[in-house]
Amino acid sequence: MKISIYTMGGTIDKIYFDDLSDYTVGSPQVGEILKEAHGAFDFEVHEVLRKDSLHLTDEDRAMLRARIEADPCPFILVTHGTDTMADTAKALMGLPGKTIVFTGALSPARFKGSDAGFNVGCAVGAVQSLASGVYICMNGVVFEAGKVRKNRDAGRFETVE
Amino acid sequence: MKISIYTMGGTIDKIYFDDLSDYTVGSPQVGEILKEAHGAFDFEVHEVLRKDSLHLTDEDRAMLRARIEADPCPFILVTHGTDTMADTAKALMGLPGKTIVFTGALSPARFKGSDAGFNVGCAVGAVQSLASGVYICMNGVVFEAGKVRKNRDAGRFETVE
Amino acid sequence: MKISIYTMGGTIDKIYFDDLSDYTVGSPQVGEILKEAHGAFDFEVHEVLRKDSLHLTDEDRAMLRARIEADPCPFILVTHGTDTMADTAKALMGLPGKTIVFTGALSPARFKGSDAGFNVGCAVGAVQSLASGVYICMNGVVFEAGKVRKNRDAGRFETVE
Amino acid sequence: MKISIYTMGGTIDKIYFDDLSDYTVGSPQVGEILKEAHGAFDFEVHEVLRKDSLHLTDEDRAMLRARIEADPCPFILVTHGTDTMADTAKALMGLPGKTIVFTGALSPARFKGSDAGFNVGCAVGAVQSLASGVYICMNGVVFEAGKVRKNRDAGRFETVE
Repeated sequence: MKISIYTMGGTIDKIYFDDLSDYTVGSPQVGEILKEAHGAFDFEVHEVLRKDSLHLTDEDRAMLRARIEADPCPFILVTHGTDTMADTAKALMGLPGKTIVFTGALSPARFKGSDAGFNVGCAVGAVQSLASGVYICMNGVVFEAGKVRKNRDAGRFETVE
Repeated sequence: MKISIYTMGGTIDKIYFDDLSDYTVGSPQVGEILKEAHGAFDFEVHEVLRKDSLHLTDEDRAMLRARIEADPCPFILVTHGTDTMADTAKALMGLPGKTIVFTGALSPARFKGSDAGFNVGCAVGAVQSLASGVYICMNGVVFEAGKVRKNRDAGRFETVE
Repeated sequence: MKISIYTMGGTIDKIYFDDLSDYTVGSPQVGEILKEAHGAFDFEVHEVLRKDSLHLTDEDRAMLRARIEADPCPFILVTHGTDTMADTAKALMGLPGKTIVFTGALSPARFKGSDAGFNVGCAVGAVQSLASGVYICMNGVVFEAGKVRKNRDAGRFETVE
Repeated sequence: MKISIYTMGGTIDKIYFDDLSDYTVGSPQVGEILKEAHGAFDFEVHEVLRKDSLHLTDEDRAMLRARIEADPCPFILVTHGTDTMADTAKALMGLPGKTIVFTGALSPARFKGSDAGFNVGCAVGAVQSLASGVYICMNGVVFEAGKVRKNRDAGRFETVE
């Protein structure tokens, strides 16, 4: 089995330097997570962007769609900021023959107690088990694209009808 | 969605005291893992045993099968020691209407860099995505019961034909 | 033995929420650190400010000096942002009968691999071992106030003559 | 400043493999701890033994004493199992011109929430601040050799008159 991974930035990849610099989106953490978890499958990490997801544009989403469409791998995992993850997932709907699963994190992967490792695990488990389509794995729940939103106040994702 | 969780012990739950103590199997860690990951689904943890999986007997496996058979929940997650996980998975085959996913860890959940959080995430993602049957999620791979073994030397699970 | 602890904010106490939030200075972490380390001495945490140390004023420093001067405890530990730690340490010189040790962190205490626990340990070890005076414990080195600066480029503290 | 470090094994260095192997004393963790803490001083790690401290003999202690006596460095740090740390500390008393500080951990350095980083920090802060002599830094307290014991039931070190 091989999973093709696209990284768009977001909280999962946020790093911190010191008093002057606050935070910034760093290099993709998903490879580190898979290495630490002793993942026994092939994967390729494609670093697409290092953006806070609030700054993603329609062009960014079109570019991601084009890259995934051109990728022969049927199993696609996307790491992405949480604020507009639902929008980007929707923008990838309709690509035949591919199971595309988005995930990210509510606290940076480099934090103690981050949800990043669990979330990537959840996405990896789902991507190889689901039929073709676009999904979001957050808070341990597999949501279908187009039927999910982030509830900022509650700090979690939820189904929307 | 609700997931019913059965804990059998194993490395994932191993704790450590001090020079006079060995590691022993402690209380189930899966609830802590789901809490830390902000799981947004219902779950119930049934603590069955606190055994190193090398010490599990046929009676233990029959008892687990009976308890899961009597459980109306269709989504079942089992945390289990890795050495005989494949045997117990096989012993649960043939229960209709249930997706049963086993997971565990190669290093205790309380260790820095443990694979436990990732593995539980993987099992949670798989259990709600797969058809009925019995599966093992280890090393980021979903294996079917009866077609998987632990390769002790390589320190990972692999398909067996 | 009792240690009286004053917290001024800084990187050690920085927390993180999500894409819409910056890191902000949260509640003091030093108490959590001492609890996790099974500290077997009395301590009292006085939360003074939650400031990035670049924003500390002369009034803030005068207020800290007055509070410590009025504190009968001979062992004083101050957690503080690193950028102006050397300035605040200097501003506390000349208080008789007190050993005052500053520490902080280059990465937030809540990060994996943070230096916060080590640094607080170093300060705790030093404060009960040194003669009266004002000191900074960073990078595992005990510096005297007035003879130390932060080298931002190198990311560490160093002696200045 | 340079610190010469001797490692004797003990809980701080305990590692864990999997169901069959339980635990064992692994390679010294103190160097990893100092690296992670961005220690800005010179140090040399001398790996002496990898023993659970209950198995240390009088010969082991005599050998450690001889090695430290022959070491020109005035600042000596010893990592050691906790159960007989007090005995070994006593066995090193009377070496002139040296400040010798013992430390270790109640939970392995590789555990989440281990006291190892804090304890090593405490020992590093103390060793460069104290007069010649032999000391133990555990639970954030600097004890003099000959006046300290481990209270196993309470899980901490305490002064003995």
